[in-house]
Parts: sequence; C-alpha cells; structure tokens
Amino acid sequence: MAKNDQNNENNLFKDIVAHAKEYGFVYQSSEIYDGLQAVYDYGPYGAELKKNIKELWWNTMTRFHDDIVGLDSAIFMHPDTWKASGHIDSFNDPMIDNKDSKKRYRADVLIEDKAAAYEKDGDKDKAQALLDKMGQLMTDEDMEGLRNLIIEEGIKCPVSGTDNWTEVRQFNLMFSTQIGSVADDSNKIYLRPETAQGIFVNFLNVQKTARMKVPFGIAQIGKAFRNEIVARQFIFRMREFEQMEMQFFVRPGEELDWYEKWRDTRMKWHKALGIPENKLKFHIHEKLAHYANAAVDVEFEFPFGFKEIEGIHSRTDFDLKRHMEVSKKKIQYFDPEISKNYIPYVVETSVGCDRLFLMLMCNAFTEEVTGEEGNEKKRIYLKFKPALAPVKAAVLPLTKKDGLPEKAREIYKQLKSMHNVVYEEAASIGKRYTRQDLIGTPYCIAVDHQTLEDDTVTIRDRDTTSQERMSIDDAIKFINDKCSFQHIFASLD
Amino acid sequence: MAKNDQNNENNLFKDIVAHAKEYGFVYQSSEIYDGLQAVYDYGPYGAELKKNIKELWWNTMTRFHDDIVGLDSAIFMHPDTWKASGHIDSFNDPMIDNKDSKKRYRADVLIEDKAAAYEKDGDKDKAQALLDKMGQLMTDEDMEGLRNLIIEEGIKCPVSGTDNWTEVRQFNLMFSTQIGSVADDSNKIYLRPETAQGIFVNFLNVQKTARMKVPFGIAQIGKAFRNEIVARQFIFRMREFEQMEMQFFVRPGEELDWYEKWRDTRMKWHKALGIPENKLKFHIHEKLAHYANAAVDVEFEFPFGFKEIEGIHSRTDFDLKRHMEVSKKKIQYFDPEISKNYIPYVVETSVGCDRLFLMLMCNAFTEEVTGEEGNEKKRIYLKFKPALAPVKAAVLPLTKKDGLPEKAREIYKQLKSMHNVVYEEAASIGKRYTRQDLIGTPYCIAVDHQTLEDDTVTIRDRDTTSQERMSIDDAIKFINDKCSFQHIFASLD
Repeated sequence: MAKNDQNNENNLFKDIVAHAKEYGFVYQSSEIYDGLQAVYDYGPYGAELKKNIKELWWNTMTRFHDDIVGLDSAIFMHPDTWKASGHIDSFNDPMIDNKDSKKRYRADVLIEDKAAAYEKDGDKDKAQALLDKMGQLMTDEDMEGLRNLIIEEGIKCPVSGTDNWTEVRQFNLMFSTQIGSVADDSNKIYLRPETAQGIFVNFLNVQKTARMKVPFGIAQIGKAFRNEIVARQFIFRMREFEQMEMQFFVRPGEELDWYEKWRDTRMKWHKALGIPENKLKFHIHEKLAHYANAAVDVEFEFPFGFKEIEGIHSRTDFDLKRHMEVSKKKIQYFDPEISKNYIPYVVETSVGCDRLFLMLMCNAFTEEVTGEEGNEKKRIYLKFKPALAPVKAAVLPLTKKDGLPEKAREIYKQLKSMHNVVYEEAASIGKRYTRQDLIGTPYCIAVDHQTLEDDTVTIRDRDTTSQERMSIDDAIKFINDKCSFQHIFASLD
Repeated sequence: MAKNDQNNENNLFKDIVAHAKEYGFVYQSSEIYDGLQAVYDYGPYGAELKKNIKELWWNTMTRFHDDIVGLDSAIFMHPDTWKASGHIDSFNDPMIDNKDSKKRYRADVLIEDKAAAYEKDGDKDKAQALLDKMGQLMTDEDMEGLRNLIIEEGIKCPVSGTDNWTEVRQFNLMFSTQIGSVADDSNKIYLRPETAQGIFVNFLNVQKTARMKVPFGIAQIGKAFRNEIVARQFIFRMREFEQMEMQFFVRPGEELDWYEKWRDTRMKWHKALGIPENKLKFHIHEKLAHYANAAVDVEFEFPFGFKEIEGIHSRTDFDLKRHMEVSKKKIQYFDPEISKNYIPYVVETSVGCDRLFLMLMCNAFTEEVTGEEGNEKKRIYLKFKPALAPVKAAVLPLTKKDGLPEKAREIYKQLKSMHNVVYEEAASIGKRYTRQDLIGTPYCIAVDHQTLEDDTVTIRDRDTTSQERMSIDDAIKFINDKCSFQHIFASLD
C-alpha cells in the first residue's frame, strides 16, 4: 500500500471511530474515570445495531436450520472445563519485563515492531526474515529463543531505553476470580475465554432434552473475556467481547463435507448483510491448531486491512473427548441409523459480534461530496441495510403548528409497535434529515400541510435523498416491507 | 401455612425444577463436572423463553416510551465506579468461621436457622424476638454483637458440632479480577454487581449524543455478578444473573410523582404477562437505603412464598453526585425550560430477568387431572402466553407417508420466517401433542389426508386441547395474530 493511501485509510478509520462516539454508537467504557483500556460501551444507536445483528444471526442460525437449537450457558464454568479444553495450559502470550522501567511487553510484539521498523527503512527482506524466525520460535514455544532474539536485535525498552530484560514468561490470557467465601485455590474460576465450551459440556443435555439427532447444531450468543496485553483497533480486539458461536455435531468421517457447507453458508450470510464481494475473502489456515483438521477465516477489508471476522473450524472430536477424559463421564451418541456409538465430530462457526458491528460501521460510513469546485457540499451518512439500521424511520412534521405534530404522532404510533422509530419536531426539516443520515436512518417521513388535506406524506430515502409522495397507509406498508428481515432471509434461501 | 400445604408447595417447586431440567429449559452449569454452585445454563427452550422476555421488556421500555433510549455497557468498569457507588465499602455479608471444621458461614443465616428451629418447636415469639434482635445488629453493622448473639444462643457448627467461632467479618460480595499483565493492586477490577452504574457513568454521553431532554430514561439489559454465600432456590438467587434496569432522570422535586407513575406502570406490565392479580403484590420498604427517598418491590407468589421480582426506587441524586465527586467531572444538566443547571434525580426500575423467567415457569406449570376415580389421567402443560412461549407452533403430519410430510413442511416453511416453530413427524400424534404441551407450545397444526384434498388443517389449542379446522391461509394468519406481541402491547396502552 502506498504511503498516501495508508494515511487516508488511517484518517478514514479515525473518522469512523469519532463518528461512532459523537453519534451515540460506541463510548470508551468508564469515560468519566478516564476509561478502561480495551473495553467499550454501546450507546443508544450502537445498542440497537448490536441487537439487530444478534437477532439476525440467531434467527438465521436457529430457525432457518431445522437441525440447530439455541443455548444460553453461563460465563462462569467449572474450572476443570479449561483444563479439558487446554486453556489453562496453553492459552498464553509470551511476556517480557524491562528491569529498569518495570514495564511489561509482549515479546512477539516487540519483535514485530522491530520488523516494522526495518520495513519502514526499506529493508523488506530483513523484516520478513525476522518475522519468520519469530514465527518459528512462537510455534516451538521457545521462550529463551525469543529473549535471545530480542537481545540480538538490540531491541530496547521504549521507556527506559535499555535492554535490561527479564526472562520471557508465558502469561495466561484468562481472567480469574474467586468464587465462594474461602480464598483458597480450589475456588479459583475463570471468565470464559470462548463460548464454545459451554456448548460442549452441555452436548448430552441438549441432545437428550431437545431430542436431537446427529447431525445437529447448538448455537449461542454470549460474552467472553481475554486479558489481551496489546489491545488495538477500537472494538476490533477487546478484553470483553461478544461471540456468536455454533457447534455442529456430525458423524466421524463426514466432517469435511460439513465444513465446506458451513464455509459457504457463512460467506453467503456476510454478503447478505450488504457487504460487497470484493471486501470479503477467505483466509485458509495453513498451520492448523492441534485440535483441527481444517480451518478457514472469513476476512473483511477494514480501513486497517483484511482482518478476521469469523472462523470456521473442523475441530474433530478433540473437545468432547477431552471433556470425557477429564470428567470421567461417558459423552457418546448412539446413532440409530447405523446402530453405532461414537463421539461426534464438530464443525464450528465462530463470529465476533463486535467485529461484525465494526464491519457494518466501516461499510456503512459514506462521505459524499457534491457541487462545483470551491462550492462543495459534504454529506456523511451511514448506509446500513434498512433491517439492520438502529432507527428504521423518523416521522417529522414540517412545522410545529397547524396540527402537523398531532398528525405525525398518529403515524409514529402506528409504526412504533413494529419498529424502532423516532418522532422529531425541533429544528428545520433539513437539519433533521441530516441528523437521521448521521445515525443511518433509512427513511424519513415528512408530514406537511398537504397531509392534512389528502392523507399523503413524503418518504425521503437516505441514500438517494430523493422523496416520494404516497398515502399514509402505503407509507406504513413501505416501511414494514423495507425494514423487515425477510429480504435478508430471502437472499439466504 | 399448615405443614401439609408447605409440603405440597415444596413438592410443587421440586416438580417445576425437575421439569425445567428434563424438558430443556434450565440445566445446572457444568453438570458433567458435578456443577458449579448457584450458576445455571439455559437449554434450548429456556434460551428462547429468556430471549422473549428480554425482547418484550426492551420493546415495551424503549419503543413505547418516547423518552427512553437503550444502552449496552460493559461488565468491566473502572474500579473507581464502585468506590463512588459505595459497593467497595459496604456491599458486604457478615461471615464467621468455625475454627474446628474450618467451615465458613453467614452469621445472619446461622441465626435465622436458629430462629427457624424455635418456630418449628412451636415457639413463634422466641423466633421473632431473635430475628428482631439480629435485624437491629445487622442495621448497626455490629459484628461483635452478632458473634455474641451466636455464642449466647448456643449455635454450633453443623459440621464440627462446636462453638469455637472466629470473629465475624464483613465479606465483600463483588467478584474481583486483575486486568492487564502486571499483578499489582492498581489493576484490580470488579465484575459489576449491578447494571445501573453503567447507566450513571454514561449519563452525559447518552444525554448529549442522543440529544435527550430531562425527563428521560436509559434502559439496559445485562449480566451482573454477586458472590452470594448462601445461594438458594434454583435460579432465584444466582451468582451470575441478568438484570433489566431503567434509570429515569427527572427534575429534582418531581421524583416522587415519577416514582408513583413507574410503580403503577411496572405492575401493569407484570399483569400483562398473564400473571393473575392475586399472585402479585407491592412490598413497600419501610427502612430505606441511604440513597433512596422511596422504594417498593413487586413481589410474586412463588411456591416458596411472596418474593421480590422487581424493585422501583427513587434514588435521589445520590449516584450522579457521587460520580461527580469521585471523578471530579461536572455531571450536570442544563434545563432549557427553566434555564437552570442541576443534577437530575433518578427513579429506577430494576427487574431480574432470571426471576421473571422463574415466575413465568411457576405460573405456567399446570397439572390437570381428568377422568373418573381409579381411572384418572394426568396432563402437564406449560401455560405461557403465546407470544412468550419458546415454540409458537408445531406442524405435525398425521403420518409419515402419502405426501403429508411434504405438505406439512410447506406450512412449516411459511411460518418459520416469522416465528420459532417446529416440524415433527416421529411418534403418534398423541405423543407429539403431549411433547408440545410439556414445553408449552400453544398451537399444534395437524396435516391429515383431508389437507391434501381441501387445503385445511386442524389447530389444537394447548390449554383446552380442542381442535378447530380451518384453511391453511387462515391457520397462518391465526398463528401470526395469536403469537404476536401486539396483544401484550395493547393491554399496556
């Protein structure tokens, strides 16, 4: 990417973050206390957008698949869960401290920064060689090797300026807390770092009580927590985040067919949200995690590059088997069609709700310049699909008098039992349109003096700014139709 | 309550808990690891029911009040939040250890158990006197007095049988964890014990970015955590639970009018869920928390007695003022109508989502005995309001052949884009009806041979078991109408 392009992309991302704050989508958490790093709160419009994303995912993943049911398991789980899953032993980042500044860093990030410096100086090969070397050490979990590489490369602490480094140690990313009143180690529990394990430990409960037959899936939405040391890019990588995961249980040997099916189904889903094809791509994992026999990410082109939004993984029977070993409970399924007992294989689709949110914000953010040179007008609007927009319609009386507000309120009342709509009467109609553009409201219904005569209103389209006059009844039908999930559902069929 | 009645009520509650587990509503968390005390997971039907409760609350609290917007703030907050709110200093339970058994108890619960023993022995006055004495010591936070009372009453440790007690100490109910990589005290944060503070710290953010004018409210749904030592009664008191809170900001001096309005509005809401009037009552707080100038609970009659499901509190300006003091940020509102700056007063409605869930389960659970003596038939069904039921309709072909499944699937497909519906073809029609009764599905649509001739189906009503034949189109309209939230909305108008 050329330098100028990169600057533009950085500025674009800054603009999107600022817009999200200013127009009530996302705030820094605990802002009045100067914030809490890598934690964010969703404001009124953000909360609605996030709710719509979750609703759409839930409906399309459960209702549209006869063989998938939902689950809502707790954040707190028995600590043995994380022994079985491998998170206690190997969910780590390599950390190193500078003895002079007492500051702690991620060893791999220090090396990445050094590589970036080489690249900036034009030495791309040297940068790549360094990254390759580091990659190998990380794979081998060679902590001493990482430290030696830091020393060899002459990497200094940015605060103290010295290379007086400690050993590199593995730092577990799970948050822990004590449950119960006695502060001994047996009461140590973790905040789940992923929602998937809540599905695995409930496999038999769900299979039996909802009488499911393999192949079937369990879907759930919920918070997960990771004590990320380097948390970056706004809500892209947070310490508290929300996952939408589905584990699909299949006959051993059939997992790769299902993996391909789910990979394609999920890509189609992202396109149905209105994301252009060229902004989405697959990234196939070449190095697989120890539990997987196939894995692919769906990536979206954020202003800071193509990044993962969803992972589709063929996880084999690793998790169920591990839970069986650790819990000493038999976790098997009797398949009546082939009269066999087995541990099902699992294909997982795991998407970050906050990342989808950020994807939709980035994709929706539109700056349009119109008019002649020297007399340009800039218009900013958020081009959400109507069904996903936080506010579906604004009902606006042209003036505050002559009975227009009363008439507008009647229309507002008819709409609000179906949709999140607003009524606004303050400020000029132009300012009110602009305001709705900035929060991504697809339609504005204006009530004017003609409305009082013939029961017609104008509907203004956010994207084209064109207006169309129609009867109130048609306007309500129009909003109901355009803002329904049915259009998205139809494109998934 | 007579002893027999109490036994019946205990049995009823046990039946409801067992039903919730067996039919996929609620499981013990991490059951394969022998569970995690006072933490539960929601199964497929439980997840749907909970989702419907949240959806209804959100829609009625935000959309139906033009002056209320939503928020979705994080569980992690800056620790100074809890200094300001008072939770660090005074969100405590009094704990006492037995030196011989090393077991820890809540001092007040040991005394309550003693009082219960007196009552069981017929000495009701002595029991009441003991409870009164304890109540006073708790109010005075007199830890030494509590210990003395335990000694005086000769209360022994149930495990060691001795009265070799430690001092009584205050035990904070907040869960804490470490954020960031350095394990020093400055990085200690808490899991929020209530969602309300996320609203308070964002008051100005929301007011400005959503351009709200006092009076207005902020609503949010989210998890909260309390390290309850004595967690009892299934999902009634859990360590991880979900709150639905709304803080309504008003002009100082107008808070008691709003308090009354919200008290009545919220009671009406519970009745609209289908809860009979005699199962709900107000419990007015006589002793008020230090921050409140009026407070009332809505109580529901569970099988274990009338218990709080929601609190409506007039919280004055306590919270905003405290956050202003601790953060040193000005948190004030300029009221253009009276040209004055002030710290708004707050009226809060705070309802436990899990408690509502339990209320609906208890209210829905119905055992019906029909038939003559010696030949009785028992039918169990869950009498949820159709709009709240986890599954709205089951589409059932009478047999698996003659094209009935294909016809039934067509109807199923038309319904599932609107509702959570199921299709089932296995087992006899009677067994399938029973199954739907047990999970509370209000309507079963049976497709039989006549359907192939004249496009009619029968709809079976869960509560009456009566069947009505109608055209497929009418059946779909019928389900859409009966299962919509609109009926509940209308009863709130």
